[in-house]
Amino acid sequence: TNGGLTLKTRDGQFSTKVGGRLQVDAATYGGSPDMGDGTDIRRARLYLAGTLYRDWGYKLEYEFDNDSITDAFITYNGFENYQIMAGNFKDPFSLDYMISANNTMFMERALPTAFNAGRHIGVMGARNSKHWTLAAALMGDTVNDTRDADDRDEDEGWGWSTRGTLAPINEAGKVVHLGLGFNYRDLQPNNEVRFSQASETSVSSVRIVDTDDLANADTMLKSGLEFATVMGPFTAQAEYIRASVERDNISDADFDGWYLQSSYLLTGESRPYKNGVFGGIKPNRRVGDGGIGAWEVAMRYSSLDLNDGAIEGGEADSMTLGLNWYPVPMLRFSANYVHVLDVDGGTFDGQEPDVFQVRSQWAF
Amino acid sequence: TNGGLTLKTRDGQFSTKVGGRLQVDAATYGGSPDMGDGTDIRRARLYLAGTLYRDWGYKLEYEFDNDSITDAFITYNGFENYQIMAGNFKDPFSLDYMISANNTMFMERALPTAFNAGRHIGVMGARNSKHWTLAAALMGDTVNDTRDADDRDEDEGWGWSTRGTLAPINEAGKVVHLGLGFNYRDLQPNNEVRFSQASETSVSSVRIVDTDDLANADTMLKSGLEFATVMGPFTAQAEYIRASVERDNISDADFDGWYLQSSYLLTGESRPYKNGVFGGIKPNRRVGDGGIGAWEVAMRYSSLDLNDGAIEGGEADSMTLGLNWYPVPMLRFSANYVHVLDVDGGTFDGQEPDVFQVRSQWAF
Amino acid sequence: TNGGLTLKTRDGQFSTKVGGRLQVDAATYGGSPDMGDGTDIRRARLYLAGTLYRDWGYKLEYEFDNDSITDAFITYNGFENYQIMAGNFKDPFSLDYMISANNTMFMERALPTAFNAGRHIGVMGARNSKHWTLAAALMGDTVNDTRDADDRDEDEGWGWSTRGTLAPINEAGKVVHLGLGFNYRDLQPNNEVRFSQASETSVSSVRIVDTDDLANADTMLKSGLEFATVMGPFTAQAEYIRASVERDNISDADFDGWYLQSSYLLTGESRPYKNGVFGGIKPNRRVGDGGIGAWEVAMRYSSLDLNDGAIEGGEADSMTLGLNWYPVPMLRFSANYVHVLDVDGGTFDGQEPDVFQVRSQWAF
Repeated sequence: TNGGLTLKTRDGQFSTKVGGRLQVDAATYGGSPDMGDGTDIRRARLYLAGTLYRDWGYKLEYEFDNDSITDAFITYNGFENYQIMAGNFKDPFSLDYMISANNTMFMERALPTAFNAGRHIGVMGARNSKHWTLAAALMGDTVNDTRDADDRDEDEGWGWSTRGTLAPINEAGKVVHLGLGFNYRDLQPNNEVRFSQASETSVSSVRIVDTDDLANADTMLKSGLEFATVMGPFTAQAEYIRASVERDNISDADFDGWYLQSSYLLTGESRPYKNGVFGGIKPNRRVGDGGIGAWEVAMRYSSLDLNDGAIEGGEADSMTLGLNWYPVPMLRFSANYVHVLDVDGGTFDGQEPDVFQVRSQWAF
Repeated sequence: TNGGLTLKTRDGQFSTKVGGRLQVDAATYGGSPDMGDGTDIRRARLYLAGTLYRDWGYKLEYEFDNDSITDAFITYNGFENYQIMAGNFKDPFSLDYMISANNTMFMERALPTAFNAGRHIGVMGARNSKHWTLAAALMGDTVNDTRDADDRDEDEGWGWSTRGTLAPINEAGKVVHLGLGFNYRDLQPNNEVRFSQASETSVSSVRIVDTDDLANADTMLKSGLEFATVMGPFTAQAEYIRASVERDNISDADFDGWYLQSSYLLTGESRPYKNGVFGGIKPNRRVGDGGIGAWEVAMRYSSLDLNDGAIEGGEADSMTLGLNWYPVPMLRFSANYVHVLDVDGGTFDGQEPDVFQVRSQWAF
Repeated sequence: TNGGLTLKTRDGQFSTKVGGRLQVDAATYGGSPDMGDGTDIRRARLYLAGTLYRDWGYKLEYEFDNDSITDAFITYNGFENYQIMAGNFKDPFSLDYMISANNTMFMERALPTAFNAGRHIGVMGARNSKHWTLAAALMGDTVNDTRDADDRDEDEGWGWSTRGTLAPINEAGKVVHLGLGFNYRDLQPNNEVRFSQASETSVSSVRIVDTDDLANADTMLKSGLEFATVMGPFTAQAEYIRASVERDNISDADFDGWYLQSSYLLTGESRPYKNGVFGGIKPNRRVGDGGIGAWEVAMRYSSLDLNDGAIEGGEADSMTLGLNWYPVPMLRFSANYVHVLDVDGGTFDGQEPDVFQVRSQWAF
């Protein structure tokens, strides 16, 4: 019970955990466009999760900030290294999105997370081992039925997603990670496709690039390349994602984005890595125990291009500086400065907003 | 702590439980009308319940799928075999509805559950003993105030509900159950009465029979007859429900429905019975413990008549086949096939849709 | 674990609690205006709270009745008697509002709670000692962003709040409390100011006094004076609150209100007092343990004046009688009778409604 309620039976057959997270943000904006300074609860979640009869697992998590179900599934772990999952969970695609929002290097994910695949209801099979992982999922629609009264007799959209990762080196403090992912979606008439992105901030709801609803979208394929490395206190992580939307009777639309981010833990910790994703930082010496916690500085360049032919969603590049303080495990305080280098096209063509934002977080 | 968090003090004065349930469905439809294949989270609930100072109990449960409070009450159990309850809970009426949705024989209740009385805020007194139960409740309105700004000065609706059950035989694996229930509701001008029903599926929101709002409804009386029996691995259950709506200046409206369902547990378990309802199946031999869990096959015929004079809501009959697998306690996987034999009257007159649907469930 | 789930580690470094509350009301109204008899779930909350590494605390609470986040914060308690808090919590202002709704003398707070400052996202520093407390907070906007699509580029509103209390006498059963508070708010164009109040009841949504939206509101300052005393089983509590709204190009608006309430515990208990607020009553002898629980009778006079110049929101005075029964700790049953002595001005000028209402509550 060192954070949340975790109970286990002695024989290891059962465990139960009540956990949650809270992220509270404050942000101030400079330059143009005006974005509206203010505060926000970014995430506020509670969950119940556990193990039943050793081989079975379950989870139900709810996001109170926007009243939505996030993780809600049942798993079977009876085959060593394999996992079978059914329910609502993240499509396996994109390292940045697979890493829990509790553990990302910056307060918000990089610009190309505009292409993350989100959560859908479906089934997944996954293989996790020390040096490689492979996950494949067949997904239906999102939890919230996107069909309205007029098209409730239409079938829902569906898709598949797959992600493979390779870690030729995977030791404590020494990791090389490579990843490849594909995410396909068959869109029903009722599914709208729209890509947009804020300037790596969420207190303001202003989106600096935005394609608007893409007409006649039929199917969509996203593909992504991942690279990451850990060398002691240093982490580097990069991704390239491309999204191709096939449209009936109109030319297809292609968009892409990439980012490169790196961080350095001044207090000497290393970013943990397991099953193809990064975990959270645990300080070597805690505040209240003679230490100053863990301190991390980070830097990112990210780019997102939502222009394609007649579609002028805008292209944005931004530079982000970050500082994270982890006084004790489960707590995190962050300060981020984002400078948008240029918006090219779209509503905010030529503008260069600045963001300064802070976050307080507990999570377990 | 073998599922959920249950803690007890040694003297038995206190206990607390955090529990929940998750039901995830996928369905595909055949025939006409088109109903829209897809997936759905059917129920996703968490609750906190417990005992205080031996004689008092409490519960608060929330349904995350549609953001509503379900059970929310306080009970006094200080008189042996008697229970007093205040808060929000199910009106005592109809065996099919009294059985937890975790433990029903099929994924959805039978067609006549269109007449279930739902939950209201009120008080109830109940007597539970081995061979009989009696419950009587006085209920106000539902949790969500049905009055809008225009009629907020009107009184809310109210009603009463009573259910008695008799179990002349009640041993492990040998049960005969008889039940009788009445549910009355005094409708305020703001209360609309409308009966409708889907084809025993909930992924699609298409309703095959539907009376639409009944004009000038004044009061409503539902009455129900229940029969059930358990003989070893065999269970049979049947109900007849009639709903009579009295209307100002118009002829009254009468509707009714019935079902007969039975199941057989191939692996030899018996359906548990207590306090006038059936509980959940616990497999004799678990998966992971040398067994294959419990397997159950089930069959149902149900009928619902929403035609009466000028009101043509439609009459539907359907046949359902079910297969349930309980690999370990608290988990359940189900597959159901529903064939609507005929819709007679209403929007879908003469149509005969088919449903094939599956569910994954954890609950405790 | 005597109510809710509280777990602690032996070294006292960690604790976790799952708690909640449920308040279920029924009310009937007499006189005019018509207010609509009925039932209501007043509050239904669950929370997760705890201590991390001795010095840090967290809480996340959700109100299911209106789907909103209430307390959601992180605290640092490493400096003796001091507390630093960040997140969403009550602005420190007004004794009546600072006392948990579980522990108020009557079912609803007094009329002047129309001026309570609510919860905002911000930071607070507080000093709590036996004979005095001081809290100062800098607050942003409420959890629910009040900006709509048109003004999302506007900054959010912000404010500060401070409250000091003095308890020259603070012993068990003998307390004298004095308090002073100020609450300031800088209103953005999107912030509407509107004061209104029901007749100390919440089943009906009729508001007997109501200023409607105040045009051109720019800033708002509330100030409050508190007095309270405990002498054995007797408690008295009084407050005066004034709210001044500065308006652009129009005359400022000033409103005020006050109340005096007192109660007597027939069974001899004393109302506990700590850190500038009252706690809940624990019966000396419990029901089920040879006792009859704790019984309390209470009486209140309250007054609220929402008339100022051209603004005719109405002035109301009301008299309230209350009876509380605490059979065991954590449970409470209340009956309240409210008589509105007169409404002077506004929509309900000259009317005198009566309220009779009861509540069942569990909370821990």
